[in-house]
Amino acid sequence: MTFREYLTQQQQRIDAELERLVPKEATPPETIHRAMRYSLFAGGKRIRPILCLEAARVISPQAAGVEAAACALEMVHTYSLIHDDLPALDNDDLRRGKPTCHKVFGEAMAILAGDALLTLAFRVLSELEGVDAGRRAQMVYELAAAAGTPGGMIAGQVWDLEGEGKTPSAELLERIHRAKTGALLKASVRIGAICAGANAEDLEALSRYGGHVGLAFQIVDDLLDVEATPEQLGKTPGKDAAQHKITFPAVYGLEESRRMAEREASQAEAALERFGERAARLRELARLIVDRSA
Amino acid sequence: MTFREYLTQQQQRIDAELERLVPKEATPPETIHRAMRYSLFAGGKRIRPILCLEAARVISPQAAGVEAAACALEMVHTYSLIHDDLPALDNDDLRRGKPTCHKVFGEAMAILAGDALLTLAFRVLSELEGVDAGRRAQMVYELAAAAGTPGGMIAGQVWDLEGEGKTPSAELLERIHRAKTGALLKASVRIGAICAGANAEDLEALSRYGGHVGLAFQIVDDLLDVEATPEQLGKTPGKDAAQHKITFPAVYGLEESRRMAEREASQAEAALERFGERAARLRELARLIVDRSA
Repeated sequence: MTFREYLTQQQQRIDAELERLVPKEATPPETIHRAMRYSLFAGGKRIRPILCLEAARVISPQAAGVEAAACALEMVHTYSLIHDDLPALDNDDLRRGKPTCHKVFGEAMAILAGDALLTLAFRVLSELEGVDAGRRAQMVYELAAAAGTPGGMIAGQVWDLEGEGKTPSAELLERIHRAKTGALLKASVRIGAICAGANAEDLEALSRYGGHVGLAFQIVDDLLDVEATPEQLGKTPGKDAAQHKITFPAVYGLEESRRMAEREASQAEAALERFGERAARLRELARLIVDRSA
Repeated sequence: MTFREYLTQQQQRIDAELERLVPKEATPPETIHRAMRYSLFAGGKRIRPILCLEAARVISPQAAGVEAAACALEMVHTYSLIHDDLPALDNDDLRRGKPTCHKVFGEAMAILAGDALLTLAFRVLSELEGVDAGRRAQMVYELAAAAGTPGGMIAGQVWDLEGEGKTPSAELLERIHRAKTGALLKASVRIGAICAGANAEDLEALSRYGGHVGLAFQIVDDLLDVEATPEQLGKTPGKDAAQHKITFPAVYGLEESRRMAEREASQAEAALERFGERAARLRELARLIVDRSA
């Protein structure tokens, strides 16, 4: 199977599980379930859940409950996009080439749909079938720590908002991005590994992989905001510069940022050494994250 | 100890534990921790955490971890108030006599502070000290189900928003309130009981108590919106009628609503029979919920 075919297969696996886990559009109250599904099925690349599935597979070929755990990560990612896009935050009308949740369902419903996806993610982890309770509780902890404050996604979002217009510094930049995108990407890998019953050494190696992949991801995100076309991005590029956001290109320039992303990807691959051929897909995923054009 | 002294003591116990669990104001990013604490320590009555503590005490005099579990309920309650008060939802400027979170910290920070409190609640439950993992996972499940959709607080909030201006019906009214306030109040009792290791029969009896207390609470809330003064409420009364909300007084009238609240309180007390004198405080709490003036 080619890497492209593999990605499509994993995306279908995630979508089928999301379909099962999220209340149907016909379940009352219908509006919120439509809003949750609108954003969940808006064409996301499913990078976090695929990292979760693949980290689990490196540990154990058939880890029970891992599809649902992977979906919890996509729910948290989607909630963060819905709330980020709100007028009071980034005020984005377009996401993945489609109108954002609040443009379609109104602000009240978008706030509640985000809240509901975040809540559902924890519910899903708490009742994973075939996973012992100790690991379920640990996965809830990992997700909450990565998504919350201090140190997680919400903290990164606050630093990002407050950093607008401030003098960009390497220290602030790294702090923002470790929290804002890095924590959840790393948690995606860790939650997959925990779900599959990884021992401490394997979990530690996969965490290092996740940390480097997370930083690479954010550097490339910043580069794409400068270099990509609106068609590639599915949203308006150049917003970071317009809002005076602290980004890697703003601190290091384009060329050095590109080199840094490559370096992070190499370090991610190096962290996988102990797993040998079993980690081939994780290596390809690290490359994908650096080479993507959207 | 009088019931008043007991309430004060329990509130202090909760406040001390919240103080310990929530990031300090000086922890970066400071703004969001200030916003979270502003709303958490804005003079809430702590009804949900006190119900949790007391349900646990009926089962076991010294249940480990129950203070932190009780705080998780207050975090979810506070998050729901912060988001409900936003301009896109109920647009309230005043809560408990103080400016609402978004009036003080802005809309973006209020949205994120709510998100952060919800996330922290799950983190707290996932790592309760001295509670076995099976019960921790079950408590995460109970909280997520009660706070989410369908059937939980968010579903109730959606029905409530969509019900504005619709013809009030007894069926819609009960559906809204079972979900909107009833689910979390019932979960408060259940989570306390689970934390203390309740058996199935005791949990079932306490759930019935929680269900009746939850409905009584909402009926009285609706009555206070008609009958109380702004000083008593700490917010503007009469908003339900102005927004054409579906309330108990709107469907049943004031007198019958008052009788219904009394009936629910009696049924709550009846559900406690098997616990005898051990449940004296839970009986007093049911009375408090019906007799309160704010």
